[in-house]
Amino acid sequence: MVTAQHRKIDYKRELETASKGMIMIHDPKLLIKLIVRMIVSKVMIKHAGMILYEPDKDAYILSISRGETGFKVPAGFARFSKNHSIIKLFTEKEYRALTINKNAILVQDLNRLIWQESVLNNKNGNQQLLHDVGEQMQMFNAVAGVPAYYQDKLLAVLLLGEKHDGFGFDQQELDFFAALASDVAMAIRNAQLFMDLKKEADKNHDLFIRTMVVLSQAIEVKDKYTHGHTKRVTDIAVLVARQMALNESADFEEEFYENLYIASMLHDIGKIGVPEEVLNKNGTLTKEEYQIVQLHPRHGVEILSPLSELKESLDGVKYHHERYDGKGYPEGLSGEGIPIIAAIISVADAFDAMITDRSYRPGMTKAQAVEEVKRNAGTQFHPVPVKALVELYEKGRL
Amino acid sequence: MVTAQHRKIDYKRELETASKGMIMIHDPKLLIKLIVRMIVSKVMIKHAGMILYEPDKDAYILSISRGETGFKVPAGFARFSKNHSIIKLFTEKEYRALTINKNAILVQDLNRLIWQESVLNNKNGNQQLLHDVGEQMQMFNAVAGVPAYYQDKLLAVLLLGEKHDGFGFDQQELDFFAALASDVAMAIRNAQLFMDLKKEADKNHDLFIRTMVVLSQAIEVKDKYTHGHTKRVTDIAVLVARQMALNESADFEEEFYENLYIASMLHDIGKIGVPEEVLNKNGTLTKEEYQIVQLHPRHGVEILSPLSELKESLDGVKYHHERYDGKGYPEGLSGEGIPIIAAIISVADAFDAMITDRSYRPGMTKAQAVEEVKRNAGTQFHPVPVKALVELYEKGRL
Repeated sequence: MVTAQHRKIDYKRELETASKGMIMIHDPKLLIKLIVRMIVSKVMIKHAGMILYEPDKDAYILSISRGETGFKVPAGFARFSKNHSIIKLFTEKEYRALTINKNAILVQDLNRLIWQESVLNNKNGNQQLLHDVGEQMQMFNAVAGVPAYYQDKLLAVLLLGEKHDGFGFDQQELDFFAALASDVAMAIRNAQLFMDLKKEADKNHDLFIRTMVVLSQAIEVKDKYTHGHTKRVTDIAVLVARQMALNESADFEEEFYENLYIASMLHDIGKIGVPEEVLNKNGTLTKEEYQIVQLHPRHGVEILSPLSELKESLDGVKYHHERYDGKGYPEGLSGEGIPIIAAIISVADAFDAMITDRSYRPGMTKAQAVEEVKRNAGTQFHPVPVKALVELYEKGRL
Repeated sequence: MVTAQHRKIDYKRELETASKGMIMIHDPKLLIKLIVRMIVSKVMIKHAGMILYEPDKDAYILSISRGETGFKVPAGFARFSKNHSIIKLFTEKEYRALTINKNAILVQDLNRLIWQESVLNNKNGNQQLLHDVGEQMQMFNAVAGVPAYYQDKLLAVLLLGEKHDGFGFDQQELDFFAALASDVAMAIRNAQLFMDLKKEADKNHDLFIRTMVVLSQAIEVKDKYTHGHTKRVTDIAVLVARQMALNESADFEEEFYENLYIASMLHDIGKIGVPEEVLNKNGTLTKEEYQIVQLHPRHGVEILSPLSELKESLDGVKYHHERYDGKGYPEGLSGEGIPIIAAIISVADAFDAMITDRSYRPGMTKAQAVEEVKRNAGTQFHPVPVKALVELYEKGRL
């Protein structure tokens, strides 16, 4: 008996310690898996499972069952409505009285309880419910069900299979499992809430990015020549940046790629302010018309000013027509004074323009365009993104 | 002594129970406040505080101090670097050995420890550190510091003031506080992570909405007549919807207002596909030109198709030129067949167009416009939003 007692204390301490770290695990499925596995191995029972309340579904879900044999869960039986006999047993006042002494329901007690209800209390409803619970427990191969409450609300029911040694659960153990089940249920709710919030953050981020895409395509509606240009420039720019990291000429944070993506998508947004007759003109622009076109980077930044915290992206929009030799616009920045995000877009933008057919000239081949970009490295273009572009072309990735 | 023992068990049980619910509280400040308040009142100590690790700052922050007298925290002393003496005492192997027996550091032990280090171990560094710790503890008016670890990382230090009864803390109490501090620290980390995630979700949502604003303003760059129109229509539409809820002719979920906001901001986005010469024409449009203009709701929905999950908002964009009598476009829907979101925008859009000056006609007064809208209720407009608009005008809120 001393050994058994010792083992009991051991597993309690281990489970208690383990349950402490639970709230740091934010994947509900992983969490349930770990906990059930731990109970099965430490307590030496054949299997265990947990029925957990899920508020979005307003129902209880048998989250996992695991062990030597596993519960037999017929399809469609993993979801428990509030009217399910096991749930009612632990939620409705009238029935809770039947379980409250032990902090649990034991299959071995069911017949005695049914007898009590019929002989002492003469309650048919209670007998029926207890009978149903018995059938359910048998179906799940469980010998005990331990409820977990938080603020008097049933959060979960821990289902325990038989012990390997064949002994039943004593009251001390049941009390311990009641406390454990409550910790576990809260940790799982916590993880579920985390996942919900994470999903919401991701969803909002995704909406933001897709709104950016819509915004970027709004310009293409107006500018006949740029059809698909924005998307291609974006793809090329991101490829070039990744290649720069790969050949170790740059070391970008992951955030940089998103900023570059946004900047590339929006680099020509300012063209929305250029009159259609200028934008779609067949032939050379007059000096005045060219001056109007040159306003588009500044104009883009103005349009995007409500998003001023996207500073790096706005730099990309503003400076994508600067030249390495300082002869670009709008500010005549040069060399390393040009933000690298803009230098990358500049190369991608020019490359795509070269290979695209225009009404007044056919597009170059990619080979020709790569040569042309190379020829202008150090004058028009920053040499580092040019090097990456050339490498990409040589690897057949353009 | 029996009484004292009893009280000890009492507060332990109470604190343990209370600490269970902690992970359901996701406001870190509230959480720390509750916990420190609870410790102070249950344990009968004069004050308590907690130094908590904050990963974003890579520093330890004295999160709160509370009680009868409070700790005296000079400005700038609420932040502890990793080199702070108290932090070092609990993190660096060499010093941890000094505290590991007791699971805590007690001010009353410091002199003995300093003496040990000088006489037995002859370690000047350790003496200096212990001396510093002593000064710090005195400054914070604390008699004990209890560390909380998670996966061998120092998460927090619980600072305890003197007990009211003047007795010191015994080892059993210190062990209990160590366990409690660790629970508390994890709950606080959990809450912090929740707040971070919540902030991220909110930030992303905010970015999404502001990108919508940018998108809506992109159309105004092209359309000279609509300057400020979009914003005004949006304000009026939301006012009208709120008034409909107020006069109980509608019962909207909170989400509806956001969808209406988005739809109103974007209702004319499809005009980006209408040639400038038509959009900005001085005088009456030809039949063909009018047909082109009439395409803008459909065009808007096409442009916004990457955001198809914003279904209700897209309905607002698509159907804001339908008429209650079925004579509108693009589909000739009528009566209740027109989504209410579109019916509201339709009224707001028309009202704002009426009161705005055009190059070929001056704007009406608000009184005239309200009369005109009223006259067309049941033919052009849905009567319910018209009623709300009239009420808003009468209350002077338009």
